[in-house]
Amino acid sequence: MKNEPTLQCPLPISAIDTIQLAHGAGGRQMRQLIERTFMPAFANPALSARHDAAVVELAGIRLAFTTDSYVVSPLFFPGGDIGKLAVCGTINDLAMSGARPSFLSAGFILEEGFPIVQLERVVASMRDAAVAADVQFVTGDTKVVDHGKADGMFINTAGIGLVPPLVQIAPRCVRPGDAIILSGDIGRHGIAVISVRQGLEFESTIVSDCAPLANPVARLLEAGIEIHCMRDLTRGGLASALIEIALDGDIGVEIVEEAVPVSEPVSGACELLGLDPMYVANEGRFVAFVPERDRERALKVLQGCDECWGATLIGHASSAESGQVVMRGALGTSRMLDLLSGDQLPRIC
Amino acid sequence: MKNEPTLQCPLPISAIDTIQLAHGAGGRQMRQLIERTFMPAFANPALSARHDAAVVELAGIRLAFTTDSYVVSPLFFPGGDIGKLAVCGTINDLAMSGARPSFLSAGFILEEGFPIVQLERVVASMRDAAVAADVQFVTGDTKVVDHGKADGMFINTAGIGLVPPLVQIAPRCVRPGDAIILSGDIGRHGIAVISVRQGLEFESTIVSDCAPLANPVARLLEAGIEIHCMRDLTRGGLASALIEIALDGDIGVEIVEEAVPVSEPVSGACELLGLDPMYVANEGRFVAFVPERDRERALKVLQGCDECWGATLIGHASSAESGQVVMRGALGTSRMLDLLSGDQLPRIC
Repeated sequence: MKNEPTLQCPLPISAIDTIQLAHGAGGRQMRQLIERTFMPAFANPALSARHDAAVVELAGIRLAFTTDSYVVSPLFFPGGDIGKLAVCGTINDLAMSGARPSFLSAGFILEEGFPIVQLERVVASMRDAAVAADVQFVTGDTKVVDHGKADGMFINTAGIGLVPPLVQIAPRCVRPGDAIILSGDIGRHGIAVISVRQGLEFESTIVSDCAPLANPVARLLEAGIEIHCMRDLTRGGLASALIEIALDGDIGVEIVEEAVPVSEPVSGACELLGLDPMYVANEGRFVAFVPERDRERALKVLQGCDECWGATLIGHASSAESGQVVMRGALGTSRMLDLLSGDQLPRIC
Repeated sequence: MKNEPTLQCPLPISAIDTIQLAHGAGGRQMRQLIERTFMPAFANPALSARHDAAVVELAGIRLAFTTDSYVVSPLFFPGGDIGKLAVCGTINDLAMSGARPSFLSAGFILEEGFPIVQLERVVASMRDAAVAADVQFVTGDTKVVDHGKADGMFINTAGIGLVPPLVQIAPRCVRPGDAIILSGDIGRHGIAVISVRQGLEFESTIVSDCAPLANPVARLLEAGIEIHCMRDLTRGGLASALIEIALDGDIGVEIVEEAVPVSEPVSGACELLGLDPMYVANEGRFVAFVPERDRERALKVLQGCDECWGATLIGHASSAESGQVVMRGALGTSRMLDLLSGDQLPRIC
């Protein structure tokens, strides 16, 4: 229900239509499901803002509120596990609205027969990630389903945080000419998970970028950077995040291919696996759209944060057609990025 | 992570211990899991209050925040479906803290191959229940897992609401002598679900009591009733809710068996199935602990609400040993109620 541009609906649902993996992949099919099934039922201004977290008003304060379920397979991967993911993912959705994350909920769905020692390992990860990000788990729930009716464990986390006064961060705030800053190299999380799942061994272990982003965002706001929009890169990768913002913000985007950092191991793995790093999942990277005048200061602030030392300018918002994301290549070529059809890497988060 | 009394821990977890259905059943094993695995990792004052919803302070306002995952099987049953359940259950957890429910999140975990028409039916139920209870879904998430890795669909809802100033509702506020009011007859939800699951046919269809309880709670507060504690009856039924409050509130409870309303069909079904209605799940009933002086007014307010016309006095808090719940029978006999071991009716919510 996040960041969903208006897409033309295909044929009406028939009795034989079923859910496919692609409906959860962050691409075209997911958007269609949301536009057709969820949005008409639940439409309201906060939901329709299509931001990572909803911003709502309650008793005169502005709250960010968000949720995500985590179904990553396998549960443990280089650089993290489902527990760390469940904390960082929800913190990052809050942070992307400019909120300071405060409280989390945890909902566990456990499969009968799941080893309790593994549950304890995941819970320890959640605790460590929550302590590091200064958020508290204040409420939770545990359900158990019969053996064979889940896949080890699924976790849902929801989160709330306070949005500072005057902060307005949303796709509709982006202006042509805004600088687009990417907080680091892309594709690590997707490749880290897929390499364990498929038993692949690369020369060096590729470690997920999974990290909480609340601190770098707070530093940007403290520095007085006028952030127009931010989005963390998850399912669907950098390309999908840019397309979503471009569609929802009714603007164009132009980026420079060579400016997008992809590490050598990730690039090699993508080639081997036939994946486009622009669409591979991340869990600790984000893009920020800021006025050109704030660009250098924003870069300096981010490069001073542990999680974002590799922050770099990758392009600008443009006055091109709404939703149009163009990537300029090294030889003057250019390529139009489109929402992915199908599911490149299922169950990546 | 709710309402968890301190229990003596059994032997330490070993590498071969696994999750059992009973760990999600709301009884003894769930409590042990929570005490041993979740509480030590996440301990903080809001969580330790062990109430249905956490009450937290943010920018000077008091927020209730809660979450539940729903894994009921089958998805559709007389009187409701997983969607209505997911709305009412979370609204009720908020209401039990005295909060006025405002915003909900929805997290869907869908199984590949699940019919989209069924998803649409569930979403329509969620919409109807949300409209009826005047709450909004403002954020959401959809994940899809491979065929055979879930059971149709699971839903998580989290919710937030405002707790009015001065309202203090918690087990620790219960005083010996407090009147205990039950909002209606018990056991309908559990029997409604199990009858569909097992293909049982009774003389009349038993319909789930699934309903939102925010309105009756608001009416009690408006009437100035001094509510010491409330709890909705879910997994584990009336008995578990009373034991939890007694343990957490460090008090005793005495109820009168004949005063607890059980409808003829539910009572007959329980006999047939070998179930004790005191432990059968409900989704639209709650108990309220109020000072004896407010008893008659509270009953009158509740009996004036559609959802609670059958509200009745069932007993009193006592100064007996902490956690001791005694049920007086018709012939002067008395029976001590204890937390259930094992899982009477798995996947009831």
